[in-house]
Amino acid sequence: MRKLTLSTAETIISAAFEKAAELNLKPLTVAVLDAGGHAILLKRQDGSSIMRPQIATGKAIGALAVGTGTRWLNANAESRPHFVNALNGVSGGAIVPVPGGVLVKNDEGETLGAVGITGDTSDNDEACAVAGIAAASLVADCG
Amino acid sequence: MRKLTLSTAETIISAAFEKAAELNLKPLTVAVLDAGGHAILLKRQDGSSIMRPQIATGKAIGALAVGTGTRWLNANAESRPHFVNALNGVSGGAIVPVPGGVLVKNDEGETLGAVGITGDTSDNDEACAVAGIAAASLVADCG
Amino acid sequence: MRKLTLSTAETIISAAFEKAAELNLKPLTVAVLDAGGHAILLKRQDGSSIMRPQIATGKAIGALAVGTGTRWLNANAESRPHFVNALNGVSGGAIVPVPGGVLVKNDEGETLGAVGITGDTSDNDEACAVAGIAAASLVADCG
Amino acid sequence: MRKLTLSTAETIISAAFEKAAELNLKPLTVAVLDAGGHAILLKRQDGSSIMRPQIATGKAIGALAVGTGTRWLNANAESRPHFVNALNGVSGGAIVPVPGGVLVKNDEGETLGAVGITGDTSDNDEACAVAGIAAASLVADCG
Repeated sequence: MRKLTLSTAETIISAAFEKAAELNLKPLTVAVLDAGGHAILLKRQDGSSIMRPQIATGKAIGALAVGTGTRWLNANAESRPHFVNALNGVSGGAIVPVPGGVLVKNDEGETLGAVGITGDTSDNDEACAVAGIAAASLVADCG
Repeated sequence: MRKLTLSTAETIISAAFEKAAELNLKPLTVAVLDAGGHAILLKRQDGSSIMRPQIATGKAIGALAVGTGTRWLNANAESRPHFVNALNGVSGGAIVPVPGGVLVKNDEGETLGAVGITGDTSDNDEACAVAGIAAASLVADCG
Repeated sequence: MRKLTLSTAETIISAAFEKAAELNLKPLTVAVLDAGGHAILLKRQDGSSIMRPQIATGKAIGALAVGTGTRWLNANAESRPHFVNALNGVSGGAIVPVPGGVLVKNDEGETLGAVGITGDTSDNDEACAVAGIAAASLVADCG
Repeated sequence: MRKLTLSTAETIISAAFEKAAELNLKPLTVAVLDAGGHAILLKRQDGSSIMRPQIATGKAIGALAVGTGTRWLNANAESRPHFVNALNGVSGGAIVPVPGGVLVKNDEGETLGAVGITGDTSDNDEACAVAGIAAASLVADCG
């Protein structure tokens, strides 16, 4: 696979929601972006709060911004807060540097896009992203 | 129905895509927003260009902003361009005042949300929104 | 009177709503700002659409911006559109140059604030603002 | 109750102001927003400073953004400052993450809107929001 299609994005989100149901998580919002950071698919489950679309998208953008999952940004926010603050600035406030933004790669290591999930704990959000990406037979990079 | 659910939004977009296939339209992007203007579901078909998510969302926001479909805004853009320019300003550049932003109402006339579609001609975009809303047994207000 | 109080603003909006009921208008949103352009009181009637608070505020700001009611800005939008466009720019997109933004003055001609109304036709919006200001024994300047 | 009406918002603010008078607090500004984050009613008491409308609104938006009162955001600002900074970014600078932003829910736990209060200490601001919501026989979620 060379490009994320809408159909693959549907597979990813369906599997992420299945994982969330299995873990009995709070309502989630999930964004799947292409390699250029543009939305392919976004779903907000009933009861997920109003700014969740921006948070989910911000996690996915954060991962694409630095070329690895947002777990890396979360660690940097503690060790080098000035760097993460600056990223907020240069991105026009577009990134959310906590776990749950996961890169989607193919077998050759090429980045096809990113998944961002929000609604439960950051660790649980990330677990659902990983489950979704695996269901599409693609490779997750959590950072 | 009192609130648009994710499941209803899925019905709307599936029917809009069916209509588009029937009419042999270009790839579309469709946004379904709740009554407060927050995304419930957004789908960008393969080949739909990168700023389509913002355009689709901007049509739906435009309809919610003034309480009727964006066909009304499109007419005002000719008769009162300074009003539509001002709406762009006070909304922070969030509205797209051309047909294809359609309010979703229930039988009692209550606004439940809006659908915004972009990718083909504005008239065709709007026709798909209307088909989607009808498939969910809800009422379309095109403006 | 030297300053608009919250209590006077309440008088203005109540009388504006009474006028609207008398004329059988659509649901309105009304903003009363002080002389510095800061909100004292804002009311959105049930069924008034979601961007009406910004539109009402933008009319009131527009009146304060140029020192007369927005009927003057509306005329200028036709005769000198580049001026009104520029005002949009320098105000950061804050003004709405159509009738319904009315200055509130005292008997000495001092500006105490402005009222902005939106929801029906611009002429009807303005008539309600005038009725509200009269009920507070203050002087309306429509532009 | 399914939707906050202007009349219910009036009840909330009147009771909040009564509580403030009882506690002898400084002049307050109170915003009541609907579930989508759009103003229904905003009142600034005489003597309340000029940016209070934005602060009150920002508290209410903050609560709606994450689906619980801003006391939760205030705690997160200490434990995960990068998350709260990011929320500021993705919201376009719209949130104020200190106590005094309180969700308004009905008996079934559905979010109908939010109240934001500012002017005294954050704890006192919040106490007035809680009193206002109780007076409307609705349920407060402080976070």
